[in-house]
Amino acid sequence: MRAVDQVLEARWVVPVEPHGTVLEHHAVALAGDTIVEIGPIAAVRDKYTSAPRVELHEHALIPGLVNAHTHNPMTLMRGLADDLPLGPWLQQHIWPAEARVMGPEYVRDGVELAIAEMLRGGTTCCNENYFFPDVQAATYLRHGFRAVVGLPFIEFPSAWAKSRDEYFDKNLAVHDEFKGEKLVSTTLAPHAPYTVADESFARIRVLSDQLDIPVHLHLHETAQEVEDSRKQHGMRPFARMQALGLVDERLIAVHMTQLTDAEIAACAMAGVSVVHCPESNLKLASGFCPAEKLRRAGVNLAIGTDGCASNNDLDMFGELRTAALLAKNVVNDASAFDAAFALQAATLNGARAIGLGDRIGSIVPGKQADLVAVRLDALETQPVYNAVSQLVYATGRHQVSDAWIAGVRKVENGALCAIDADALRAKARAWRARIAAN
Amino acid sequence: MRAVDQVLEARWVVPVEPHGTVLEHHAVALAGDTIVEIGPIAAVRDKYTSAPRVELHEHALIPGLVNAHTHNPMTLMRGLADDLPLGPWLQQHIWPAEARVMGPEYVRDGVELAIAEMLRGGTTCCNENYFFPDVQAATYLRHGFRAVVGLPFIEFPSAWAKSRDEYFDKNLAVHDEFKGEKLVSTTLAPHAPYTVADESFARIRVLSDQLDIPVHLHLHETAQEVEDSRKQHGMRPFARMQALGLVDERLIAVHMTQLTDAEIAACAMAGVSVVHCPESNLKLASGFCPAEKLRRAGVNLAIGTDGCASNNDLDMFGELRTAALLAKNVVNDASAFDAAFALQAATLNGARAIGLGDRIGSIVPGKQADLVAVRLDALETQPVYNAVSQLVYATGRHQVSDAWIAGVRKVENGALCAIDADALRAKARAWRARIAAN
Repeated sequence: MRAVDQVLEARWVVPVEPHGTVLEHHAVALAGDTIVEIGPIAAVRDKYTSAPRVELHEHALIPGLVNAHTHNPMTLMRGLADDLPLGPWLQQHIWPAEARVMGPEYVRDGVELAIAEMLRGGTTCCNENYFFPDVQAATYLRHGFRAVVGLPFIEFPSAWAKSRDEYFDKNLAVHDEFKGEKLVSTTLAPHAPYTVADESFARIRVLSDQLDIPVHLHLHETAQEVEDSRKQHGMRPFARMQALGLVDERLIAVHMTQLTDAEIAACAMAGVSVVHCPESNLKLASGFCPAEKLRRAGVNLAIGTDGCASNNDLDMFGELRTAALLAKNVVNDASAFDAAFALQAATLNGARAIGLGDRIGSIVPGKQADLVAVRLDALETQPVYNAVSQLVYATGRHQVSDAWIAGVRKVENGALCAIDADALRAKARAWRARIAAN
Repeated sequence: MRAVDQVLEARWVVPVEPHGTVLEHHAVALAGDTIVEIGPIAAVRDKYTSAPRVELHEHALIPGLVNAHTHNPMTLMRGLADDLPLGPWLQQHIWPAEARVMGPEYVRDGVELAIAEMLRGGTTCCNENYFFPDVQAATYLRHGFRAVVGLPFIEFPSAWAKSRDEYFDKNLAVHDEFKGEKLVSTTLAPHAPYTVADESFARIRVLSDQLDIPVHLHLHETAQEVEDSRKQHGMRPFARMQALGLVDERLIAVHMTQLTDAEIAACAMAGVSVVHCPESNLKLASGFCPAEKLRRAGVNLAIGTDGCASNNDLDMFGELRTAALLAKNVVNDASAFDAAFALQAATLNGARAIGLGDRIGSIVPGKQADLVAVRLDALETQPVYNAVSQLVYATGRHQVSDAWIAGVRKVENGALCAIDADALRAKARAWRARIAAN
């Protein structure tokens, strides 16, 4: 008999690895922050009789969802300006609003609201992309939330940094400050090919090698971006990134709505991860990412919500469902991008994209205990023929009942642990007054 | 001072008419089943001091959503067979399962589960399309749910009717039986051009005129349907319907993923209503309905979920959001199909499509009190800049707190009134065992 700290007993366990598996009446044993065993409930009870048990009689236990592309401070701008073309949206609404409020407090409060929303919806890890990465990292750590924090770079002065050198200096200091943290790691996050110069990309490539961290980049978001690059650089942005040596297994390429078959093949060959943000692409009319083609080519395809100013939520259940539905119609094949793949994209593939594929993203002994329980006895998911189908095509995020990050309970029976929702609501309202002011 | 039965006081009232209006701190006064007044809270209090008040401090009060195309008995087949092309899906899964269980009990229990799901998600009226319309109508009436019941016709024997004449005889009997009911009315529901012969369509056209009821028809669902019609009839299905005299203001044309500009103009000219079912179209890879083009042409565009075997839910909040997001990308314009229009499509336009535009679909004195309250203080919809944006782009159906149909409370503070959820769950599980059996 071995001592463990918790045993979670579930009606269904969907471990994501092996692919497509649904285990019925299985238990997952946790020691500290780690998964130590997965097996039939009776067998696990025999082996670890003294462990505290959590009984999830009507639930599916899944790996925590990984939101592979977010701008979480922007949660405070949810619904500020909708139904607008990209140009006026950015120039007349988002950027002026950001100019009014950008700073550590805004970033901290936006991330806190986002953490609460993510946890309530079954997301236990996110890949951040915004200013003030130091504040982000500190906020995620304070809440025990797993995050990969982008070190932002853009060729414009911002509240975060005034010059190219200051961006690099401050970003490197943030990397050093949080190096070795269990729950927080970093990427280099140059904004996009059209806002970052070749010289900066060259420095970023060298740093990515030296620090061995990913590069998180908006790429081929719109046809306009591709066309502008042709005019300015004589080549498509992807070709420019290839020429700059950035197309490799460290690249996290976000959006990718415009891709030739040759570019898809090049992504597969180089080991690039693509983050598909279907709802943002739809809402901003950015184009249709060829998600099924990428999947068939063997590209590691992950899913992200993008920020709340262009989505307008951090709902990964909604996002993975939209990804699955949309991919079928784009390739005119109802069997494309099946439910099991959609769940993998939103968990294991996200983990792989951000360099955490060996630590999270599936329920496997030795991995971190980032776990989510989803009630399938809601009338909206009755009856249950196939738990994976219900999770992907019928489940709403409100059915998430429990969540753990590194073995620590973050949501219990539908309620956030150690987060004061009323205080968050009051802060959101205060920011609303400042952000909406003209 | 005038006596009324209820006054609903809300933080926001979104009446849908006038288009795009958001009223803050307004109240709606009800007398029996009818809306009698809408005005500022203080003014309504002054006028109707003795009325019982429902305070909705954090809520948006909207017209109940109208699901303009459903097959609700199929709720019991939710998730039975996913990720399959249309042919194998129907022939190897859905039809054999239906053959095992089709009958009054299956229809009754499926409709009951659907009613519970619809109410919890803010839907107060649906446009049904399935066998055993008599059982459907009786079930909707028993639950006080507003429904338009299709009188089904297909050129194949079914458990409902064995011959063409029996279909017409039984359907007419159902129409007579429920004529004059306040909450239930009927349409003629020929299945589709490829399953109904010209002679039957001719009878249906005459009946539609005589009874003055709409014709509810799947039309131009897939490119294959259009191509097959060209081969068999020498014309597109829409042209065939025109030739048969069915293209008029009584036609409810569902799906319409394949449309020429001339066909769109013809729909506008004739006053056809189109029901857009975006999630079903995506999931079955049926094509992209030109929703924004239809809107611009002035066609009455409504929204439906389709049945749970191809969606896999009856979530109108999800559906109207998908409709808005998708329409933008299809026309490459982020300002297309804006939030206010999406809400109108899911309420007033649905009501107009099914012949109830003068009775429901907006919060206007004299109309039926079919109303839904949605909590916007959930963290997922904080902060609130624009109530309509939040309702369309961020709200989940779980935020519905209250619903009324014809003035009768059906959901109170998140709980179903007079429906036993445990009993529904038990029935769903019993049907699952029968349906999944091979």
